[in-house]
Amino acid sequence: MVTRAQGRRRIVIEKVTPELDGGRYPIKRVVGESVTVEADVLADGHDVLSGLLLYRREGESRWNEVPLGYPDNDRWRASFVVSKPGRYRYTVTAWVDSFQSWYRDLGKRLDAGQDVSIDLLIGATLIKEASARARGEAAKRLAASADALHSETKQVSEKVELIRDRSLHTLMADHPDRKWGTTYEKELLVTVDRERARFSAWYEMFPRSCSATPEQHGTFRDCEAWLPYIAGMGFDVLYFSPIHPIGQTHRKGKNNAPTCLPGDVGSPWAIGSHEGGHKAIHPQLGTLADFKRLLAKAKQHGIEVALDIAYQCSPDHPYVKDHPEWFRKRPDGTVQYAENPPKKYQDIYPLDFENEDWKGLWKEMTSIVLYWSKQGVRIFRVDNPHTKPFRFWEHLIVEVKHRYPDVIFLSEAFTRPKVMYNLAKLGFTQSYTYFTWRHTKGDFTQYLTELTQTEIREYFRPNFWPNTPDILIEHLQTGGRPAFAARLIMAATMCSNYGIYGPAFELGEHRPFAPGSEEYLNSEKYELKQWDIERPDSLKDLITAVNRIRRENPALQTNAGLHFHSVDNEQLLCYTKQTEDLSNIIFVVVNLDRHSRQAGAVDLNLAPLGLSNDQPYHLQDLLTGASYRWRGARNYVEVEAEPVPAQIFQVRR
Amino acid sequence: MVTRAQGRRRIVIEKVTPELDGGRYPIKRVVGESVTVEADVLADGHDVLSGLLLYRREGESRWNEVPLGYPDNDRWRASFVVSKPGRYRYTVTAWVDSFQSWYRDLGKRLDAGQDVSIDLLIGATLIKEASARARGEAAKRLAASADALHSETKQVSEKVELIRDRSLHTLMADHPDRKWGTTYEKELLVTVDRERARFSAWYEMFPRSCSATPEQHGTFRDCEAWLPYIAGMGFDVLYFSPIHPIGQTHRKGKNNAPTCLPGDVGSPWAIGSHEGGHKAIHPQLGTLADFKRLLAKAKQHGIEVALDIAYQCSPDHPYVKDHPEWFRKRPDGTVQYAENPPKKYQDIYPLDFENEDWKGLWKEMTSIVLYWSKQGVRIFRVDNPHTKPFRFWEHLIVEVKHRYPDVIFLSEAFTRPKVMYNLAKLGFTQSYTYFTWRHTKGDFTQYLTELTQTEIREYFRPNFWPNTPDILIEHLQTGGRPAFAARLIMAATMCSNYGIYGPAFELGEHRPFAPGSEEYLNSEKYELKQWDIERPDSLKDLITAVNRIRRENPALQTNAGLHFHSVDNEQLLCYTKQTEDLSNIIFVVVNLDRHSRQAGAVDLNLAPLGLSNDQPYHLQDLLTGASYRWRGARNYVEVEAEPVPAQIFQVRR
Repeated sequence: MVTRAQGRRRIVIEKVTPELDGGRYPIKRVVGESVTVEADVLADGHDVLSGLLLYRREGESRWNEVPLGYPDNDRWRASFVVSKPGRYRYTVTAWVDSFQSWYRDLGKRLDAGQDVSIDLLIGATLIKEASARARGEAAKRLAASADALHSETKQVSEKVELIRDRSLHTLMADHPDRKWGTTYEKELLVTVDRERARFSAWYEMFPRSCSATPEQHGTFRDCEAWLPYIAGMGFDVLYFSPIHPIGQTHRKGKNNAPTCLPGDVGSPWAIGSHEGGHKAIHPQLGTLADFKRLLAKAKQHGIEVALDIAYQCSPDHPYVKDHPEWFRKRPDGTVQYAENPPKKYQDIYPLDFENEDWKGLWKEMTSIVLYWSKQGVRIFRVDNPHTKPFRFWEHLIVEVKHRYPDVIFLSEAFTRPKVMYNLAKLGFTQSYTYFTWRHTKGDFTQYLTELTQTEIREYFRPNFWPNTPDILIEHLQTGGRPAFAARLIMAATMCSNYGIYGPAFELGEHRPFAPGSEEYLNSEKYELKQWDIERPDSLKDLITAVNRIRRENPALQTNAGLHFHSVDNEQLLCYTKQTEDLSNIIFVVVNLDRHSRQAGAVDLNLAPLGLSNDQPYHLQDLLTGASYRWRGARNYVEVEAEPVPAQIFQVRR
Repeated sequence: MVTRAQGRRRIVIEKVTPELDGGRYPIKRVVGESVTVEADVLADGHDVLSGLLLYRREGESRWNEVPLGYPDNDRWRASFVVSKPGRYRYTVTAWVDSFQSWYRDLGKRLDAGQDVSIDLLIGATLIKEASARARGEAAKRLAASADALHSETKQVSEKVELIRDRSLHTLMADHPDRKWGTTYEKELLVTVDRERARFSAWYEMFPRSCSATPEQHGTFRDCEAWLPYIAGMGFDVLYFSPIHPIGQTHRKGKNNAPTCLPGDVGSPWAIGSHEGGHKAIHPQLGTLADFKRLLAKAKQHGIEVALDIAYQCSPDHPYVKDHPEWFRKRPDGTVQYAENPPKKYQDIYPLDFENEDWKGLWKEMTSIVLYWSKQGVRIFRVDNPHTKPFRFWEHLIVEVKHRYPDVIFLSEAFTRPKVMYNLAKLGFTQSYTYFTWRHTKGDFTQYLTELTQTEIREYFRPNFWPNTPDILIEHLQTGGRPAFAARLIMAATMCSNYGIYGPAFELGEHRPFAPGSEEYLNSEKYELKQWDIERPDSLKDLITAVNRIRRENPALQTNAGLHFHSVDNEQLLCYTKQTEDLSNIIFVVVNLDRHSRQAGAVDLNLAPLGLSNDQPYHLQDLLTGASYRWRGARNYVEVEAEPVPAQIFQVRR
């Protein structure tokens, strides 16, 4: 239990935070953020303790040191800032500080008027020992101080004067006796991403629907023409449905018909044909050169292109012939197609991660992301990661980020909460959430509190989507424009990462495939679309305004400062976000009732906003420009249902 | 990060509870108690999982297995009972259950009316594989089932019938494919003590005050005469102040006078003289034979004798000459005496646990406990453990309990909360607490909730003391008999372990050494006492009644069931304790006001007591015999201040 070498180590270090699952997983930060580390640091007796937070970027050999401070009930604290993408390590060390213990006791003895001549000699010994640990000038100065304390010509009062010299204390602190110190047994990890990991606005689209000519398959060249529109609305990530060749065998027709008709384009998620697999580009979209040209053009508009990673194959995928061992066989010799019994998806062959050549499969799958990273892609949206082994993702993400630390992975897992959280812990940068299915004030308050106020915030970065090509919630089917506007504003102001599937979203596309279904009628997954983005009822102006507000207000660029406030109307949802220094405060009121104006009295929790009860403060409505002067916690709010069922205020003292 | 061997292991096991500080420390139980283990068990996809709780007593080589069950939000649970003192280990293992996954999907296919002929062949393969893992009859039966599924003469409906046979499922469950299963990476520990670790009533006394003859030093023989009195009151642990030779050098006089007078007996905590040290007996108390005779007599009365372990020396202790390296020297060559600057304790030399021969010191200190254990002592109260290194205690306790698993250590640490908790974590069986200084309803509710409702209950067993030879709280100095009665009842009913320092307690000794001091006037620590235990104002009858109630009511023998109940009077404290099966429920009302009768309406939280709002229940006052019939949550309570400011009810449906 106790190894002998530990016998003289009197310090115990415990309950270090942040620490996920005993240090098994890294926490997450973006460049420029700080990590505040706390630890219980205990020793027997009454000695003074000293300690350090140690941190280093992986690859650097030397620890940086920050003194632990602020002890309260034996809990100590220190912080460091992460300045580059990659991985950092941190741990804690502490030791019994004999000199400070001695100095504290000396003060008590002097206060009691006791003879301290022998105590000064004990101090001299401690200083002499520090001098042996020091070098150069410091060693000389310490030795001189020790000698002075031994001097028989100096008065005790002179010696006490000497011992109180702050520069001596600094020298002693710089040369502590850490021989029997204790270092926490674990090195804990931080994954550091670039800022877009925390703050991003995604626009999802099907590149094949970009053609200006009706019925014609869009190309990457056509997509270039869309960039001003997408950038103009304020999006910075353009996420494409899969761009690879699409299988012919069992290709789905329009509206997911089991058989297709001539000319049907098929689902982009049925990846692979004789034209190639996950590293190939669908010929109708263009060439690799076209794709790289698009990446460059997008960049000029401040937009990054994100690709979809869907590890599954059409029956025509080259893997099926080249690596039959990666697919499961049925007893009749056929390849096992995808199933969710009793549903069957004959157009998709799942990869068998339990196969004997799992190592080869892992390597090839990893090489796909590396390939696209090499072409310049740095953001990947991963399809259904929860149906592939956890350890595979951990391996892939570590491998990719080792070479490309700026890569961002978005986890598209809509499954059980702990599985979603686990995928985030093992490395996904951002994650889809249950936002889409949250509706009431209680829903939002509970879910957002879980995401932003618990340990989950250390590793799970939510990305809120009001719609996706797979999900048209009933609320949008029936709620009209106010429903779209409300979901947009909530996604964009509650969550620093959000996205929409457009142009379906801004054009208010709301027809379901069937009553009770969340599938779109005439879903873009199975056919080309021609979107009229100039329609006067488009939400693009509201989207543009909301994205501008997000860029101009740092409070909306993180979820750290989210607070809900009590309001005496169940249809009103009130929340604030503020920067840590309180220089930017945003207050949002959403009317959850799509039919009627709602009003109520809000009780603002002023303390976290740095506001006081007796001083007025100013609210400016960032959508309308109107401004208000409030005082105290309780105030009246009133929000129409149309055209915009929400207000976004900037609060100023 | 991911070792290659782990690649096919799809299961993740996390957040196993109970687990203290990442498995660093054991939890505690007593014989017959159960350990309920929970774990998050996750896998990718939608397969059915199976798992086991594994446990074994240290020394046994085979794991016992309990199936994990009750999955809820991916959290699984199972329990085991610890049946012998010592240490147990437990962990969790789980695997993807291909057969159950297949069987679930088969059901869905059948419900949808699909052709399952190929699926039955897949099932046959799974059963065949299980047959290869089985032996004897089981292997034969499984092989036969697999063959039957392949049979071309059997109808599909017959095969489905076969596959639904529960005995086949039992066979499959008994021979699972755990090849790619995951076992939690830690083995967690339980320290199992005998029942007295959880339920004990301590009586502390100075054996030298036992003489029937005034001014005469008491002996172990004299102590024998006290056994009927102590056992009669219902105590089962008799704890003696140190029984070793007492130093002469700097011996303290009466009332802690810096110099003693001829005849002064000195403090028993100034251990060691030319007559011996920690393994010797003070000659005036008797011989080792006398001591062992006393142990035997005490046992006949159902009493165990507990010794005091105080690792410190008088200047006359043999160690000072034999092991000068175990003591710190001052620059003037003298031995460093104990200090708490500016206070000096020249009669005590602390042992220097930082000395070069710390291994020798550890060994000798451990040998002291082993020596007394060998003489038959099994309970030790450890003086000021927080002033010796944590790791030393961990080592000592593990060593001692390895040979004597039934030894109980009580930690006498009154210091910072985390230090007290740490001592408990590293092995102390029971611990002194802050009970002595808690006074208000808020105090008790908060502190007892911390002790009984948080993780602390897994390792910290409180022992409540209304007084000790060092602590006479102001409340007892001025509160009179009602204060003593209230503190006794609270200690004995809130906490399954409690103790008093007697006869000072039952005789209401309340004079402080000085105003504001918690020291007794004419403290027994420095002089012989002659106690008149026959005094009519003695609390012995109340103590006898309370200890009888404790013995007769299992609810009071554990702290697991403690609940506080709301009452609309700040001077009234209401709480219940009940056994897990609700067969025994105790309801206590304490009047915290020492001067006046207090009354109020209590809102009993009925649910945890198994009571319903619409059925009456009966209360019997176990001190007076009076009985009451209550109905519903809200009831009237009224408690006098004298003679007994509390009521103890047994509640019956």
